[in-house]
Amino acid sequence: MINKDLVGDLKLKWERIQQAMQQNGADACLLSVDVNLYYATGQVYNGYFYLPVEGTPWFFIKRPNGLSGEQVSYIRKPEQMTEIFAERGIKMPEKLLLEADELTYSEYVRLQAVFSPKETGNATTILRSLRSIKTPWEIEQFRISARQHAKTYAEVPSCYRPGMTDLEFQIEIERRMRLNGSIGLFRSFGSNMDIFMGSVLAGENAEAPSPFDFALGGGGVTSLPLGANGTLLKDGTAVMVDMAGNYTAYITDMTRIFSVGKLPEIAYRAHQVSIDIQQEIERIARPGTSCAELYNLAAGISEKEGLSAYFMGTKQQAKFVGHGIGIQINELPVFTPRSKELLQPNMVFALEPKFVLPGIGAVGIENSFLVTETGIEKLTHAEENIVNLSKE
Amino acid sequence: MINKDLVGDLKLKWERIQQAMQQNGADACLLSVDVNLYYATGQVYNGYFYLPVEGTPWFFIKRPNGLSGEQVSYIRKPEQMTEIFAERGIKMPEKLLLEADELTYSEYVRLQAVFSPKETGNATTILRSLRSIKTPWEIEQFRISARQHAKTYAEVPSCYRPGMTDLEFQIEIERRMRLNGSIGLFRSFGSNMDIFMGSVLAGENAEAPSPFDFALGGGGVTSLPLGANGTLLKDGTAVMVDMAGNYTAYITDMTRIFSVGKLPEIAYRAHQVSIDIQQEIERIARPGTSCAELYNLAAGISEKEGLSAYFMGTKQQAKFVGHGIGIQINELPVFTPRSKELLQPNMVFALEPKFVLPGIGAVGIENSFLVTETGIEKLTHAEENIVNLSKE
Repeated sequence: MINKDLVGDLKLKWERIQQAMQQNGADACLLSVDVNLYYATGQVYNGYFYLPVEGTPWFFIKRPNGLSGEQVSYIRKPEQMTEIFAERGIKMPEKLLLEADELTYSEYVRLQAVFSPKETGNATTILRSLRSIKTPWEIEQFRISARQHAKTYAEVPSCYRPGMTDLEFQIEIERRMRLNGSIGLFRSFGSNMDIFMGSVLAGENAEAPSPFDFALGGGGVTSLPLGANGTLLKDGTAVMVDMAGNYTAYITDMTRIFSVGKLPEIAYRAHQVSIDIQQEIERIARPGTSCAELYNLAAGISEKEGLSAYFMGTKQQAKFVGHGIGIQINELPVFTPRSKELLQPNMVFALEPKFVLPGIGAVGIENSFLVTETGIEKLTHAEENIVNLSKE
Repeated sequence: MINKDLVGDLKLKWERIQQAMQQNGADACLLSVDVNLYYATGQVYNGYFYLPVEGTPWFFIKRPNGLSGEQVSYIRKPEQMTEIFAERGIKMPEKLLLEADELTYSEYVRLQAVFSPKETGNATTILRSLRSIKTPWEIEQFRISARQHAKTYAEVPSCYRPGMTDLEFQIEIERRMRLNGSIGLFRSFGSNMDIFMGSVLAGENAEAPSPFDFALGGGGVTSLPLGANGTLLKDGTAVMVDMAGNYTAYITDMTRIFSVGKLPEIAYRAHQVSIDIQQEIERIARPGTSCAELYNLAAGISEKEGLSAYFMGTKQQAKFVGHGIGIQINELPVFTPRSKELLQPNMVFALEPKFVLPGIGAVGIENSFLVTETGIEKLTHAEENIVNLSKE
């Protein structure tokens, strides 16, 4: 019923969820949002995944999706789940975990009424924590995304024609992404994360604050105030390409800087500082390293280099320099000044020390890394220096 | 502070929301999701829009967005809203409307705790109902989208090359969309609406059921089981192009059918039945017409023509033939067999009678219509017959 190649991976995930439930005192969890269903079942379907703290999961499915088996039931509405449990003599959960940060209020309240548990807990918090430690299959998915991501970035210079706007340039990159296997859809967590396929920031637009919670902003267009805004790519402009690595369900994150002609000297210097920050973090990061320490290290080097005013923005500075990645672009951990999280083996994260230089644009580097037993391994390999588009 | 050209439009919307609140017995509503903020303020920002049942709105903003004024306050967290009200002697709402079908459970509960009203009501229900009647400015936005939508569809044949897959074909259409001004991001309401820019369905893939709530399915790829799946566009295949008209924040919906070479006769006959259904609905629809009646009319003609088994799908048949459109692709009303809604002036809807023919693909027509005082007006003008791609 489940993709055979995935059975081992899914069983590992179910065991981890069950362990977390045991610690939480929960009797069961009920998952239904696309990212959690994909995590727990290897597919997105319309329905619910119910996992008791002990035993095997139930699949409640609203639309035929090929699944069958003893604990697979087709339902029209959530109320039928408990009817089926009652018929089969299955004990109702006293403490049930629901996706409190993902379900709408109405959906949550309805599911609460269906199961009427004594207590509910937050499945989102627990799943986001578990999802931050990747399984071997998930790591393999990142490697596939990383390869395709790098392939697309190698094609970026051929997307450029003199006289283009940032949007026209981005559109050609989007096409290469899609031809290289990008699924297009860009999944993120939370309500201030509107984005389309990624971000290309050129020149002064890199300074424009955005209402969204991404590292950098950009004015965007009409109802999507983020990213490219029609800026002409003129000589002396830095062009930051930070497009999604969604070539599998697991998204790599990678930024490279391109220039139109030669940039002012400070751009190359600041860019090199970003690479130095990355190198220093590659040198010290390992299981047990504090994510806050990594942020503070990056901010400290920026300050020492006299670049604090440009670090992660100017008018609006992002207060993080890295973040977990996965099925969504913003998973745990987050590298903020006060992050309590420590690196653990099999976390996968993006590190993105960047500087926004008024009148020039954004420079800096972003790569995706896997935390190994002894350090961190870069997944996204591509030229890291600023590439001059005018030379192509 | 607000875009001057929009002030009249926004005041009209605020009055309508206030009227609805009066009828509902609500003292205020608090909006924060992107689509409702865009509706009520003409922009997306990170924060809240608070409208009392009488008087002028408050703007609470988490990230600088250029707004200023007496009732514009910059805040870091929602708790500050009531602190500001207390300082200024503003009465707290006894009944507060919150976006119950859009906010997450956690967000809703937090806002409830901030305002601790005696009662909360569902702002989503009220806003979705109000948003179904469009203002003059909104209708103008649809006309812009419709023009660009038609321009892109006229370019579709030039996107085709023999030997392409559905995905490769779609990628070239996506590029034309973007070059013609599509914002890319495709907004929809509800949790089973994952989609990327629209849908291209070719051949047998048109029969594949999808977990999502769109009219038709398609197998899709990996974690996005909807739409194109890599089907080769071979001779005798019908190719349905149903890509978003998101050229402004107001999305038009339009479907056209293309063929690779000549299709079996039934395809042309079924396609003509779709056009006949559209014509019959254009003839009778006007303010007061029941949306259920329009569904039943379409289903009735399909049955008379012996095409019921193919109407709106085969393995999984959508139980609607039209739907409101707006900032999201699935607004009110919905044309279902049991819809209680009646057409009203200034509603804008998509009508999409379609047939899925096993082994051939999907045929049919979809256009966007405005309800006028006396009938309905088609907004999306483009060739409606099946266009043979091989002839180009």
